[in-house]
Amino acid sequence: MEIWISIRSRLGDDRLFFPRADLPTPALIVDAAALERNIARMAEYAAARGIALRPHAKTHKSGEIARRQIAAGAVGICCAKLSEAEALADEGVGDIHLTSPVVTAEAIARLSRLNARISLSVVVDNPDNAVALAAVEGLRVFIDVDPGTHRTGVASAAAAVALARAIAAAGTLRLGGVQYYCGSQQHIQSFAERHAAIAGRTDYLRTVLAALAAAGVVVPVVTGGGTGSFTIDAGLGVLTELQVGSYIFLDREYRDCEFAGAPAFESALAVDTSVISANAEGMVTVDAGLKAFATDAGVAVVLGGAPVESRYAFMGDEHGALIGEGLPGLGARVTLMPPHCDPTVNLYDRYFVVAGETVVDVWPVTARGCSF
Amino acid sequence: MEIWISIRSRLGDDRLFFPRADLPTPALIVDAAALERNIARMAEYAAARGIALRPHAKTHKSGEIARRQIAAGAVGICCAKLSEAEALADEGVGDIHLTSPVVTAEAIARLSRLNARISLSVVVDNPDNAVALAAVEGLRVFIDVDPGTHRTGVASAAAAVALARAIAAAGTLRLGGVQYYCGSQQHIQSFAERHAAIAGRTDYLRTVLAALAAAGVVVPVVTGGGTGSFTIDAGLGVLTELQVGSYIFLDREYRDCEFAGAPAFESALAVDTSVISANAEGMVTVDAGLKAFATDAGVAVVLGGAPVESRYAFMGDEHGALIGEGLPGLGARVTLMPPHCDPTVNLYDRYFVVAGETVVDVWPVTARGCSF
Repeated sequence: MEIWISIRSRLGDDRLFFPRADLPTPALIVDAAALERNIARMAEYAAARGIALRPHAKTHKSGEIARRQIAAGAVGICCAKLSEAEALADEGVGDIHLTSPVVTAEAIARLSRLNARISLSVVVDNPDNAVALAAVEGLRVFIDVDPGTHRTGVASAAAAVALARAIAAAGTLRLGGVQYYCGSQQHIQSFAERHAAIAGRTDYLRTVLAALAAAGVVVPVVTGGGTGSFTIDAGLGVLTELQVGSYIFLDREYRDCEFAGAPAFESALAVDTSVISANAEGMVTVDAGLKAFATDAGVAVVLGGAPVESRYAFMGDEHGALIGEGLPGLGARVTLMPPHCDPTVNLYDRYFVVAGETVVDVWPVTARGCSF
Repeated sequence: MEIWISIRSRLGDDRLFFPRADLPTPALIVDAAALERNIARMAEYAAARGIALRPHAKTHKSGEIARRQIAAGAVGICCAKLSEAEALADEGVGDIHLTSPVVTAEAIARLSRLNARISLSVVVDNPDNAVALAAVEGLRVFIDVDPGTHRTGVASAAAAVALARAIAAAGTLRLGGVQYYCGSQQHIQSFAERHAAIAGRTDYLRTVLAALAAAGVVVPVVTGGGTGSFTIDAGLGVLTELQVGSYIFLDREYRDCEFAGAPAFESALAVDTSVISANAEGMVTVDAGLKAFATDAGVAVVLGGAPVESRYAFMGDEHGALIGEGLPGLGARVTLMPPHCDPTVNLYDRYFVVAGETVVDVWPVTARGCSF
């Protein structure tokens, strides 16, 4: 792609800056200063409360961003999938926790090779899987506890104790602790309702931890939480490590959530688009559709270049409509805030890092497509 | 990624085959024989009716597949975006029609460079854009006619005539013809209802073409249609060129449509997944979520490895649930049919080309992420 070579060469040794307005669109944009402030604010928050920070890299899939999070004080990162961890290890990230079970023989063989070169841990929710993972010499495992969604995790305190015994019996495994992620509670918009839901789920976690303690199982780390719950988790005092991800970007979903006592995170992620058709009354078409935004969480909202009241609607794979009054004309740039950051980032190969209207760097989305 | 190197080396000169069961999951699978039959059937259909075939490559984004379509008789391919065309031109595809307007100065400069090396055409729907495109020496343009969705295209017969005059006045442009794509009618499940909708829209197209003819505008090609409408379009006899895309894969959306008089296309695309958690009654979790399937068109359906009656549900970015009875156990493989092929393919970097349970090739999704 000649355009990337051109941008890269203009961002080379002499650091010629590239005008954001000249980028091909749709373009995934990161506001460099807002990102740094978000990283610093979460690091300060966790440090002040004495809770470890292990940001989830499934949000950004970027070695550049992971290294910045670790430099700011994170103990390491989380990855959702083994290939994501492999890609970020290749970028020099040396401490990774895998938040999904690794089950197949093919994947366990890869896990073993990755474990030989970085500090690695992985969740387990099944005694048979513990036996299989014992082939990985010295692997650190976490008991994944199901908060009630039945996605992954053991289903009861008794199952947690049985799994702890299977882990101990496997001989070569080391128990790193317990993982507990209340995914379906993260986006409850009302803070009070979210607090009540997380507190209720944490009461259940306490019973699981008590059963493990009663069985003589030492749990060094309790890891979990997300951007929607981390202040609540910190207050409840059960989690010892936070897996927050989306705080670095603050997408439209989290922007719509009510926060209390949280740092003032800023929107640091956007998609720049161009108007490519303008023949209808009260509507223009931009060049970003459902290959440019994840479609699982509503629609993008306007950040700039068009009235913020104008409404985005998907118009197929490659197009979106802006509907409203006072819309921009053919060729105009419109900046949109993605509805859900993680799967939107996963559609792009590069972040264009901007300071205002200037592109100051290009970062690869290192682990894009690494769902395996 | 060591795994790809391993697969590639085992698929090298000595063509050692790789067991499909050893693939990391989720894996995007193409059934080689079904794909070839789909390509041949559509080519035969178009040839028998004397209608040109220009398949839309936004479905597959693959040089390998585009070359096979052209070898089977297609006159060239369509691309949705300029970067998609650039990527496929790099793979040796020499005749490309761009189905979206190219508007910004940055993009027109790239269009000009691409036009110098392949046979290229692009739609236009605005006289100002025609003036801007005149900078591209000898560019072939198509008048895009809006079928009523207001996504792109001129809004009336009068606007089509005015645009034809602007194209002629621009001097350097050549009029390739008219484009007319009835996108929102393609997935009407009832064939009779779809036929009535397409016939009604085609009546309108006739009035536009009549107005152009009355104004002395020669329209060499009328291009459009899709997998849902091509038999109807062929019968109505107005389109001279078909832009069908999804027929090569036949995703769940099109499988659910009623066809009449169409070749018997086969499902040629799948996603292989693995069960990674199995702790709940009547439910297991597979490793494919909303980073593995497009979410705009419902959910995947089971093709193999689990009862076909079991129901898939999204469980976040990286996971899906299979719900039902007689579900497979931990580590089992489950093959799923994607709901909507185009944006699902766009999530993957590679097709694993299979013959039954054997991987016989790996094809890059050449233009993955090329939405710009």
